[in-house]
This record gives sequence, structure tokens and C-alpha cells, in this order.
Amino acid sequence: MILRWVCAVALLTGLLMGGTAQAAGSAEREKLLSDPGVYATFAAFQMKHEWWNLTGEARVIAVSEVKGLIEQFSSKIVVETYLLRGLSDHADFMFRLHARSLSDNQQFLVSLLGTRFGRYLEAATYLQGVTKPAAYASEFSDELKAALKGQAEVGARPYVIVIPIRKDADWWALDQTARQALIQEHTQAALAYTPVVKRKLYHSTGLDDFDFITYFETDRLEEFQRLMRALEQVKEYRHVRRIGHPTLLGTLSPLDDILESFAR
Amino acid sequence: MILRWVCAVALLTGLLMGGTAQAAGSAEREKLLSDPGVYATFAAFQMKHEWWNLTGEARVIAVSEVKGLIEQFSSKIVVETYLLRGLSDHADFMFRLHARSLSDNQQFLVSLLGTRFGRYLEAATYLQGVTKPAAYASEFSDELKAALKGQAEVGARPYVIVIPIRKDADWWALDQTARQALIQEHTQAALAYTPVVKRKLYHSTGLDDFDFITYFETDRLEEFQRLMRALEQVKEYRHVRRIGHPTLLGTLSPLDDILESFAR
Amino acid sequence: MILRWVCAVALLTGLLMGGTAQAAGSAEREKLLSDPGVYATFAAFQMKHEWWNLTGEARVIAVSEVKGLIEQFSSKIVVETYLLRGLSDHADFMFRLHARSLSDNQQFLVSLLGTRFGRYLEAATYLQGVTKPAAYASEFSDELKAALKGQAEVGARPYVIVIPIRKDADWWALDQTARQALIQEHTQAALAYTPVVKRKLYHSTGLDDFDFITYFETDRLEEFQRLMRALEQVKEYRHVRRIGHPTLLGTLSPLDDILESFAR
Amino acid sequence: MILRWVCAVALLTGLLMGGTAQAAGSAEREKLLSDPGVYATFAAFQMKHEWWNLTGEARVIAVSEVKGLIEQFSSKIVVETYLLRGLSDHADFMFRLHARSLSDNQQFLVSLLGTRFGRYLEAATYLQGVTKPAAYASEFSDELKAALKGQAEVGARPYVIVIPIRKDADWWALDQTARQALIQEHTQAALAYTPVVKRKLYHSTGLDDFDFITYFETDRLEEFQRLMRALEQVKEYRHVRRIGHPTLLGTLSPLDDILESFAR
Amino acid sequence: MILRWVCAVALLTGLLMGGTAQAAGSAEREKLLSDPGVYATFAAFQMKHEWWNLTGEARVIAVSEVKGLIEQFSSKIVVETYLLRGLSDHADFMFRLHARSLSDNQQFLVSLLGTRFGRYLEAATYLQGVTKPAAYASEFSDELKAALKGQAEVGARPYVIVIPIRKDADWWALDQTARQALIQEHTQAALAYTPVVKRKLYHSTGLDDFDFITYFETDRLEEFQRLMRALEQVKEYRHVRRIGHPTLLGTLSPLDDILESFAR
Repeated sequence: MILRWVCAVALLTGLLMGGTAQAAGSAEREKLLSDPGVYATFAAFQMKHEWWNLTGEARVIAVSEVKGLIEQFSSKIVVETYLLRGLSDHADFMFRLHARSLSDNQQFLVSLLGTRFGRYLEAATYLQGVTKPAAYASEFSDELKAALKGQAEVGARPYVIVIPIRKDADWWALDQTARQALIQEHTQAALAYTPVVKRKLYHSTGLDDFDFITYFETDRLEEFQRLMRALEQVKEYRHVRRIGHPTLLGTLSPLDDILESFAR
Repeated sequence: MILRWVCAVALLTGLLMGGTAQAAGSAEREKLLSDPGVYATFAAFQMKHEWWNLTGEARVIAVSEVKGLIEQFSSKIVVETYLLRGLSDHADFMFRLHARSLSDNQQFLVSLLGTRFGRYLEAATYLQGVTKPAAYASEFSDELKAALKGQAEVGARPYVIVIPIRKDADWWALDQTARQALIQEHTQAALAYTPVVKRKLYHSTGLDDFDFITYFETDRLEEFQRLMRALEQVKEYRHVRRIGHPTLLGTLSPLDDILESFAR
Repeated sequence: MILRWVCAVALLTGLLMGGTAQAAGSAEREKLLSDPGVYATFAAFQMKHEWWNLTGEARVIAVSEVKGLIEQFSSKIVVETYLLRGLSDHADFMFRLHARSLSDNQQFLVSLLGTRFGRYLEAATYLQGVTKPAAYASEFSDELKAALKGQAEVGARPYVIVIPIRKDADWWALDQTARQALIQEHTQAALAYTPVVKRKLYHSTGLDDFDFITYFETDRLEEFQRLMRALEQVKEYRHVRRIGHPTLLGTLSPLDDILESFAR
Repeated sequence: MILRWVCAVALLTGLLMGGTAQAAGSAEREKLLSDPGVYATFAAFQMKHEWWNLTGEARVIAVSEVKGLIEQFSSKIVVETYLLRGLSDHADFMFRLHARSLSDNQQFLVSLLGTRFGRYLEAATYLQGVTKPAAYASEFSDELKAALKGQAEVGARPYVIVIPIRKDADWWALDQTARQALIQEHTQAALAYTPVVKRKLYHSTGLDDFDFITYFETDRLEEFQRLMRALEQVKEYRHVRRIGHPTLLGTLSPLDDILESFAR
Repeated sequence: MILRWVCAVALLTGLLMGGTAQAAGSAEREKLLSDPGVYATFAAFQMKHEWWNLTGEARVIAVSEVKGLIEQFSSKIVVETYLLRGLSDHADFMFRLHARSLSDNQQFLVSLLGTRFGRYLEAATYLQGVTKPAAYASEFSDELKAALKGQAEVGARPYVIVIPIRKDADWWALDQTARQALIQEHTQAALAYTPVVKRKLYHSTGLDDFDFITYFETDRLEEFQRLMRALEQVKEYRHVRRIGHPTLLGTLSPLDDILESFAR
């Protein structure tokens, strides 16, 4: 028994030490994270209490199976992982998946939930979205366009916040010019925070109960809060019918660290 | 023990390989899927964790019982199956049932839930609706009528989205002519997407907490999202009091594949 | 063991075959179902999964205990039973109890939940109401009064729909004459459906979170839906603050059939 | 084993037969139930299904422990008990506790939940309030003051209804005179029901999500419903933002009867 | 076995008697509790029923592990503990953590949940906020500034109330001067209660679904309720879109007492 345990640990360590095979090649990875037309699935899970009734050995084996699975999907999907535990209730960790096709994200999650590890997971929240070329940016003033060029630098384990949003009917009834003006004001208000808060927008209309998923990474939470306050003070905010519910707050965390905490 | 397992697998394989006996004859099937006055039940289920405590053999036997059940109802009910896992939270798969009588749908589900497989199912969402002749189409312009004739072509395993809707009191207080005009505008906005998004409408007033169930099939999710945005921008949208909650997103998936994943 | 099982089955069969002793005498039964001042409790239950871990014998015995209980209360309470499974989520069956005193309904349910069968029941929804003389009918036009005289004929196992309703503050602020006029319009709109949809109204103000419980029986669901649509189109509907949540949909089903499905 | 069981039953019976030691002396009890500045905790519980897996003996012992606990707190707390089962979903029974200090109520409930019996309780709803001198009564007309003097007489086991309420911001923005006038109208509307419905008001602002807890006892439910309707028809009702959710309905029931039903 | 139990108790007692090592040095502790830019996490937990299936010895050991953990984090985090049981439903106790970095709070909670004790905890509510210099106080009149200088004196185990708040879009659309005036009125209304109710404000915009977390400590609940009423009567209250949900009510309680109640 003890021998098998040692082997199992070795197996896991081997996998964990083998380095996190980057999803897709480095270039393709960058493209998946920046191209329009890429599908993102946010999947937050909670580990069921019964997991801890497994033997340590069984847990180690189950976790190593997940590692193998991620390797297997790495050519198609960029998998990023976040630790939500202690910051968001009802969820322990979250995947953000990027793929050219939403059904690849589904196949990965179906495979994950079919593992022995996955049988103990409870899906807390799924959000689905797609990246698109910026809808209003082409009409922005040249100064605004120039100012938007910079991209925030964040450290290795920044805070991550995911806030889904639904706009009201009045918003969609506005014509393109009116919406253009409101978004320009919104963008201007956010500009000062570009150097410290990384933002990404996903369109989820029709895929879940929201219109947008807003995603933020930052090392500096207070600057992030100032950004959110600034966005509450522009006219566009009056058209936000639902914001959050849930708000997901966590920290970027390597998959190995998250899995290891469930193998221990 | 091993022998019994082999037999059980053989039994299941036999059933699975016997071909999916199409519900009803092919012609009757087509009529059930296109006639007015047909009752549809959308039933989304989640598999309880305890299912996995059964032995592999017991699971194989339980699953084969479901196969037999579907055969038995195949003359009365068209059963379509969808994989929701990984795309919708709190649900693993969904049935869409079509029958001339709602009580046939009920009898099927009662029988299903009475099987050993069914005892481990948790009903996540039930939606009930009936098909009707288009309420406003007879007054549409001839051009619009002609344009609507086409039907979307979708592949073998398209994405499927189910969005229930409740209209507000103001909508029902409008007279037929006013509603006619608003629906014509709504239909016109959707027209461009007819070739790539299959739509179907069910009336659920009084049968559940919604007025309509809207059902979509598409291979091209981005076109579907454009369709949804277009529908948010017409005046009729202001009369939508509740949309989604839940929005069900999945992929069309043969029953055999879904059952097999629970037999493994 | 096998002998005891046989006996238990015999015991149950005996009870089931002894005929469903009608609650109260037939005349008293009719009065309980038609008099004002009668208290109705709608109690929808879901069977817990653990029930199926009992032996078949234990289940048969547990079910026969319920039969005995209903006999015992039959002089005071009219018990009607409905199969909700497959049509309403989170509920398997429903009782509609009528008694002169609400505490009789409570005593019956307390006794039921105290049986071995009852320990496995989860209360999904309770609604409480009382019948009253029609509040506005005396002022109706003679034609309307005459037209209302008919009563729907429905078959042996009609569909049953229960929809609780809460009115808004504006409704209660209207004077009796104004409400009288609105209810007359409402009644007129419903008139065409009187021959095919049986309706009954219960007053629940103060007893639960609703003002009314509306109860429908029909063999013809499409006519029922037309009725509901007609009622959404009159002015009174603007004063409905909450409708459904839950909407309970099922079929009238003899208790024996329901219990038998849990004894099998 | 059998001997121990007999002893346990004897022990329980002894306690149960020893008479329900009135909380506090009879005079102090009356004062706790009528003085201002007394804290009330409404605590509704549901018994977990696992309770019934204990042996009968273990249940008897567990229940007798609760009896001892109530004796122990009887000098500080008036404990009243209600049977909610069969009338309110998700709750089996309710305590209404009155003490000079809210922390006494907490200490009692913490002790209760720490018993073997308490470990099987699930807290369904807690409401916290304090009694105060009537805020507007001093300005009532003399006739109204005189009319209010009477107190309802109710039988031994009346129905009890607990309805929490939250007022809207407009209400609190009214000046004292305006609120005074609206409450006088409200009180007048309720006056006819004083002889048959006992009412008590608790202030819960800041202690839970409500402003008030309204408590009713009556033998005559129909009169109670007329009272509720009358209160819905006065202008003050327009300022009620939330009413019920939950509405708790039960019957006054001696603790011994409730405990005994869980010892059986 | 008995020997091991005795040792385990001794171990726990030793830890408990060793004195509650104050988080951080006393000066740093004061600064964490008064500086701006400090992150607070409110984490309310419920103990799962399965905890009580552990042996007494296992519980003692599990609890002593938590004590060790708190020692370990004491240089970075001020940990305060509250007993919610009996006053708030769905929660037994609450931590309020203060640290310079939110990720320290996360690390502490992740470690806690990873202990054998933590595996039985269910996270009921997490709220996240940060302290900031008062946003409007610099413009207050000198009299108001002077009056605000006092700080409430509360006893050793005061009541604690946590009420999260979300403001509406209209509030954020007001300019700084208008908000300044409304907050000054709000502050004036609260002034009379400064000597008896300790208040603290946390900014949570973007970190959870609220804008603010308001925290209160008091020995005098009735004064606290008067304060809350006073705050409902000023104009600023009209901009409160959500208040409470949940309202958390408890008493300040040493960690040792809380843990001991779960070791017993």
C-alpha cells in the first residue's frame, strides 16, 4: 500500500514537474488570447466534501488524470486557472478557456467532469462569451485611440475580477451614434487606469443570461476600485440593468498549485 | 462477476448497435416536428453524484433499461437529446419531447424517472409548450412571406439554445393590429439570419411561468448572437419582461452518446 | 423473508383493492367541494432519493400505512391527488385537501409526514386558501349570471393547473365599483371557455405570500391556454403583481396509482 | 438494552409530566409578554431526515435534554412554541422567545443547537425584533384609544401568523404628522377585528432585512383574512415594499407535544 | 485510546490557555484597525452536520490545528471572531480579517479551509472591502468635525451588525457637491448615536455585489435601531438600491470560545 502511494506521488510529481505544457504553441496561444472570434468559457467549480473521503492515494491518482487531460487538449485550448477560494463564496477555483470553437471548450469540460476528480466537482457558475473587434473604437478621436494603445503590466499572480453585465432595453433602442457617444465617454473615464488594470470584454448575448462579461486583472485593487467608481459615474451606467450576481473575485494561480491543494 | 459484466456490456452494445429506432415512422416524425398542435416538453436533468457509486455493471444495466423505454414510446413521441454539460450549469443533458398529447410526454418522463437510471436524475428545468399556426404571419407583406420560406441548414451536431420569454401586461393590452406591426418589424430584423439559424416557437402561457419558449439550432454561433442583438433593437423587445433564467445552451447529441457516457 | 414480502404485498393489494373509500359521505364530499368557507391546502411533495434504498418490502409496508391514514381522516377531509412528475420540476405529486377547518388539513399532513413514508417526503410547495361566495357576481348583468351557470365537463384524468396570484396595491386601492367593473370584464373574457375548463378560486390573503389561488381542470389544454391569453388581455391583468412562481401542472391521478408507483 | 430504553422513556415521561415549568414567574412572564423594550426572536426549524436514523432510545434521550435546557433558561426567557408542519413549507416548528436581552435568546438557541437534538435542526428562518411603546397612539382620537382597549380572546390552540414587513423610502421620508394620519387610518380599518384577532408588533429595523414583524393569533381565520384585506385597502399599504417572504403560518402547540412527536 | 484523548485535550487546552496571541504587535494591530488602505474580509461559515460524526478526539485535534494556523498568520492579519448562531440563519460564526493585502486574507482562508476543521465548513457569505480616508469629511462644518471626534465605548462582547449596501445609478450621477451635502445630512442624523454605536465603513465596489459594507458594534441595540431609523429618514436613503440581504447579526466572541463549542 505504502509503495503504491509513493508511486502515485511520484507519478503526480513527475507530471507536475514536467512543466506546464503551454496550451498550443506560444504564438497560437497569444493569438487565442488576442484575436476576435475566440470563444471563452468561464467555469467556476466547488469541490464536494465527499472528495476528502477518498484515500490520499486515490486523490493523487485522480489529480494526475486531470493533468493528463489538459495536456491532451493543449493544442486547441488555452486553459487559465484562478483560485477563488476565500474570496468568492460557493466556488473554489475557476477555469477560463479560450478556443476557436465553443464545442472544444465543452468537450474539455465534459472530459474533465468525467474524470474521477470531476465527479466531485459542482459547477457553481458558467459564463460563455466571444471576443469581437471593438464595436465603437473606429469612431473614437485620434487622441483617445492613441491613449488606448498601452496595455497594463501586471505581476505573476494578480487579482482577477469577472463581472457579467446585462444592458436594458433602452440601451439597445438607442441608435449607433448615441451609443457611440456614451461608450466614448465611458472609455475616456477608464483611460487613466489603463496602465494598471488589464481589461477584456466578451460578448455573451444569447449564450447565457447576460450581454457582456467584463474581465479584469490587476495588482492594484484600489486603482481597480477607482476605475469601477469612475464607470458608475458616466451616463452609460444608467443602462446597466444587472451587474454582477455573481461577481467573481480570485487570484491567477497555476493549475499545479490548485490541483496540488486537492491532492494533499 | 467478470462474466456478468461482459454480458451486461454485450447487452448494452447490442441495444446501442441495434440502431436508434426513429421515434415514430419517418413521416409521422416529420409531422410531429412541423405540425401545429403538438406538445413539446423540454426536460433538463442533472445526474446525482451517487450514481457513480454503483458498480460499472449496474450502470450498464440501468442504462440499457432506458434504451428499452425509449423504444417502447417511439411510436408516440419524438425524443431528441442534447448535451448541456460544460455549457449550462446545473444540468447535464436535456430531452426535447414532441407528442400529440402532453400526457404522453408525462408518461414517458414518469417511466424514465421510475427506472434505476431515473432514480439518480435530478430535474433541473421543465418547460412546456405547444406549437401553433403563426399568429401574425397571414398579414405579413408578400415579400416577407416569400423571404421566410427558406429554412436553415445546420450540420449534424449544431449548438442549441433554449430561451423562455414572458411578455409584459402592456404587450397583451395592445390590439392585434399593433402587435401585428411590432411582430412584422421583429420578423424583418430576424430575416437575414434565416439561412443559418433554425428557429422554432412554442406557446407556454399557463403551462409554466413563461409565455413562449424560443428554440434555436445553429452551426454559427456568431450569426446567432447577431440575430439576438438585432431582436434586442426592435420595439417589441421593450415588452419582454423576462428573458432566459434559465437560458439553456448545449449541443445536439445522440442519446447513445449521452447514455454511454453514464455507463462507462 | 420471502413469506413476509408476500404478506406485505397481499396487505397492500387488499387495501388498494378495497376501493378508495370516498372521503366523507358522497353528499358531504360534494358540499366540501362546493361550499364557501371550506379550507383548501395544496401540498406538493418530492420523494427523497433515499426512499429507494429501502427494501421493496419496507416500501410496501410504508405505503400501506398511508392508505390507512387516509381512511382514518376520510370523514373530515376530501383528499384529491395529482401526479406532477414529468410536468412540474421539484415536485412528484400533490394533494388538494378540503376541510371545514384548516387545522384538520394540518393534522392530516402532520400525520402523513410522521409515517415512515412521510419521512422521505420533501415539501416542495404549500398553498393555503379558503372558498368564499363570489365577491362581485351579485352585481353582474343577468345575461352574464345565466351564462355562468354551466359547469365544465372534464374526463377522468384531466390536466390540472394551479396558479397563485398576488394583486398590486393599486388594485386594493380601487373602490368596490371599479373592481366590480374590471372583474365583470375579466369574467366576460373567460365565458367562452366555461364549457371546457373547470375553474375554482381560493382566497389566500394572509395565509401565504399570495392573494388568490386559481385552480383549473381541463381535458383541452389548448382551450385552457386561450383562456389564459384572454385573461392577460383585460385591464384587470395590469394589477397582477405576481403570477405563478410556482405554476403547478399535473394530471388528476388516483392515490392508489401514485402510491403504487412508490411501492414497486 | 430494553431496560435502558424503558428508563429513557420513564425519564422523558417524568419530565413531560412534571408540568411545563412556566418561563419565569407568572407575573414576570406577563411583563415580558407586554412590556416595551423586550427582545423577541422568532426561530423556525426543520428537522433533518437523518434524525430518524437514530434509535428510538437515542431520540428519547435527546428530546429529554431539550426539556432540561428549557427549564434552565426559564427564569430569563418566555418560550412559546408553534407547529408549522403542514402549513408552512421548509419549517416544522417555531420558537418565539421573549427576553430582556437579545443575547439571552442567542444563548438559549446556541445551547439548543449544541444538544444532540439540536445537531439535527436546520434553521429555516430567524427574525429578530423588539417591542416599543406605540409610536403614534398618543395622538389618536379619544374614541380610537378607547376602542383599542379591548384585547382579543383566543382559544387554547389558535392559528398563528407571522408576517415581516419592509417599508419603502417614501414612507420614512414622510414627516411624523403624515405618518401619524396614515397609521390612524390603518388602525381604524383594523378596529373591527380587535375582538377576534390578537396582534403584536415588533420593530426589527437593523436587526434583520425587515422593518417590522407583525404577529397574529386567532381562532377565526376568515376574520383574520378580512382584517388583512382591510389593511391592503388603506393608503399606508402603498408604502409596504416587502410583505411576507416568508409568511409563517402555524398553530400554537405545547412544546411537549412537539418534542413528543420527534421522540416517538 | 483514552490516553490519546487526554493528550489531545491537553494539547488543545495548552493552546487555548497559552493566551490569544494578538495578531501582530499591539501597535500594528491598532494601525490595521484604523489605517486607510487596509483590506477587510468578512467570512461567515456554517458547520456541516457531518462534523459531529467525528470522534470527540478527532474534533479536539482538528480544532487545535486551527489555533496553530491563526498563530502562524498573526503577524500579518488581525482576526476577529463573532458568534452568529441563534441570531443569523445559515451561519454559525464569522471572521473579520484585516490585512494590508487582500491576498493575505485569501491565504489565511485557503489554509483554514484546507484543515480538517475547514473541510466541514460551508461558506455562507463573503464580503470584501477596503478602508479609505473619509470621502466627504474634509468639507464638513467645523462643528460637525469636532462632534465626530468622539468614539463609542462598547463592552467586551457587544452586538455586531454587518449591513452591505448598493447605491443606485442616480447617486453616482450626482456631482461631488450634491453628494457632499447629502452625506453631511446623513452624518448629522447619525451624530447623536456616536457615543454608543461604533461604526466603520468599507468600500467594496467591484470586489463583490455591493458598494459599501457598514459595520456596527454596540451594547445598546435600541440606540442602534434609532440610528438606523434616523438614517432611513434622510434624503440619501432614497439612493440605497439594496440594503442587507444579508444582514449579519451576532456577538463579538473570542475565537477560543467558538472553537471550544465545536471541540466539545
